[in-house]
Amino acid sequence: MIYLDNAATTKMNSSCLDILKKYSEDDYFNASAMYKQGNNLHKEIENAKNTLLSLLGTNDGKIYFTSGATEANNMAIFGSATFKQKKYLFSIGEHPSVYNTAMALKNSGFDVDFIPLSNSGEVDYTALKSMLSKDVCFVSTMLVNNETGVINDIKKIREIIDSVNPSIRLHVDAVQGFCKVPFNIKSLKVDLCTLSGHKIYGPKGVGALYVSKNAHLKGITYGGEQEEGVRPGTYNTPGIMAMTLAASDMKKDMMAQYNYVKALKSRFIDNLTPIKDKIIINGNGSPYILSISINGLRGETVLHMLEQDGIIIGTGSACSSSKVENRVLTAMGRTKDEVLGSIRISFSKNNTQEEIDFAASKLIEAVNKLLAM
Amino acid sequence: MIYLDNAATTKMNSSCLDILKKYSEDDYFNASAMYKQGNNLHKEIENAKNTLLSLLGTNDGKIYFTSGATEANNMAIFGSATFKQKKYLFSIGEHPSVYNTAMALKNSGFDVDFIPLSNSGEVDYTALKSMLSKDVCFVSTMLVNNETGVINDIKKIREIIDSVNPSIRLHVDAVQGFCKVPFNIKSLKVDLCTLSGHKIYGPKGVGALYVSKNAHLKGITYGGEQEEGVRPGTYNTPGIMAMTLAASDMKKDMMAQYNYVKALKSRFIDNLTPIKDKIIINGNGSPYILSISINGLRGETVLHMLEQDGIIIGTGSACSSSKVENRVLTAMGRTKDEVLGSIRISFSKNNTQEEIDFAASKLIEAVNKLLAM
Repeated sequence: MIYLDNAATTKMNSSCLDILKKYSEDDYFNASAMYKQGNNLHKEIENAKNTLLSLLGTNDGKIYFTSGATEANNMAIFGSATFKQKKYLFSIGEHPSVYNTAMALKNSGFDVDFIPLSNSGEVDYTALKSMLSKDVCFVSTMLVNNETGVINDIKKIREIIDSVNPSIRLHVDAVQGFCKVPFNIKSLKVDLCTLSGHKIYGPKGVGALYVSKNAHLKGITYGGEQEEGVRPGTYNTPGIMAMTLAASDMKKDMMAQYNYVKALKSRFIDNLTPIKDKIIINGNGSPYILSISINGLRGETVLHMLEQDGIIIGTGSACSSSKVENRVLTAMGRTKDEVLGSIRISFSKNNTQEEIDFAASKLIEAVNKLLAM
Repeated sequence: MIYLDNAATTKMNSSCLDILKKYSEDDYFNASAMYKQGNNLHKEIENAKNTLLSLLGTNDGKIYFTSGATEANNMAIFGSATFKQKKYLFSIGEHPSVYNTAMALKNSGFDVDFIPLSNSGEVDYTALKSMLSKDVCFVSTMLVNNETGVINDIKKIREIIDSVNPSIRLHVDAVQGFCKVPFNIKSLKVDLCTLSGHKIYGPKGVGALYVSKNAHLKGITYGGEQEEGVRPGTYNTPGIMAMTLAASDMKKDMMAQYNYVKALKSRFIDNLTPIKDKIIINGNGSPYILSISINGLRGETVLHMLEQDGIIIGTGSACSSSKVENRVLTAMGRTKDEVLGSIRISFSKNNTQEEIDFAASKLIEAVNKLLAM
């Protein structure tokens, strides 16, 4: 099997399993308990938060651990939705856990608007500028698009925002970028930032939300006093510690992995030269994600044909649904055919050059065969 | 170390670790992906749901997997809160994840009221009857109280409800009772039921909400189409499968474990005969939990003294907070001193008779020493 759907989820590092074992079988205590074992775990969780803060390039603000990026995005948005007379802006290219939360906010009477994408797949910066006003209190744009790999220029976005009102809160869903592409929340003045464990070789079922020092957040669930009551529930210590280890390990090696994966992606694209007039590459950005549209074919058909050769790829936002998600490509100006014919190939440190070569040759075969039918 | 805080959390079964490994390192795929590996995982999750339904004594209704009981309780309550003109009743003895959610509902303008407890620690059934009316649409009472182990008579509660209006929705937080005491949601006509993984030797960070066939529930978070959109987010397949295994294993052996733990609890109480005039046992119910008040002492002091002998116990609801939670004991009519002097000893299948004898002897020593000071 050749796994090229790493943007949907990654294989967990085996070092994470050791951590899951340690905190489930040895240090399995409740981290809120008042005896030594509980206190110690609580300190370890605090240390894990400091580690994540430092990986994000800051030493202040807060980390709330969540059940994953979906919950973190919901918290970032609903937790910031305090003023019904204010305006909330979202890039139209966001993951469903941002887009659908934004729609829920809109449906509950909030003033919500969506920033278009340019043909490159980035946020349309000119449009953003024109949509900003003193009424806007919140802007949400992702770092790396999960379908296309396109990287938004968060520095530019922050500068545009600051030119209108520096106190506008900026939320960045960094799930596909964290530990993958250079990113520093402090220098970029990001107020809220969403992270996920299972996209960076960590465990499923755990994520985190960064909240800057000045961005007060109300919780969306109620219960015990964990995370100062903002995110109650028994600490998932095994997941928290394993995610933090995965992030540390990846960040340490980030540029080497970046360059390795970049070479894989380039090679894959080069290998596709024989069918280069039959495909369109949708956007250019993170080396981890490659979105291709094949005119006249269905992405799903290509996926299933490659599957027969043991090659696993995705279509659009496979991580959230079996339905073809076409909001992003449509917003980039792709035609309906290009949207339907889109596939997503996403790489990881675990892929080899041989895998890439084999997958590309099988993709060429599949495209030629299907187009001839 | 002698661990007697099993109501706060349990040591995970090693069989669960094998499952975590399998679904994180081998079958690590995204269960929503449209290729075979994704489809297979999705089927395995469906099977896990059917397993949990069957362990709950039913073959219809739905299971939604969550990040734990706190999220499940929030979903059950907020997801049912559709009619502002209706009345919502909660037992005053509920876990903070129910009580604080009920308070949040009340603060947002809903008609919320709390059913008192009798001196035995059970829901005051007479009071419940008098509080019910055609305006009530929702009643929430837990199965086993997390602080006292007292078991509510859900059959009686359902009968009282049915005598007024059979369509009133009944939510049961079964976290401390599931797989521990006999419980059947179908015969008891429970509409919503909350479960947790880490209280039954399963993993932390995963729980579930049962929803009966007729009880439509709206979600509280937004995102992808997992769980029909009611609970979005990449499936935590490792956690889901490990929790389901833990539940199956425990349910299979439930009455043997019940009797084993019951004998431990009885022996512990018998052992305390030398100080029986210095303590009050708060409630009588599940063999897994023993709440004791020691007049004139602080529970916290006793806890720390036992800690020096390597014995770990809890005070009140240690699973949610380091603060002494006194709502439950106060509602049972305990005095302030009895509340302050309360400790919780909670047992598991992993405890031995020798541990019980040692812990009881050390508790006697501690009580005598502290009372003499």
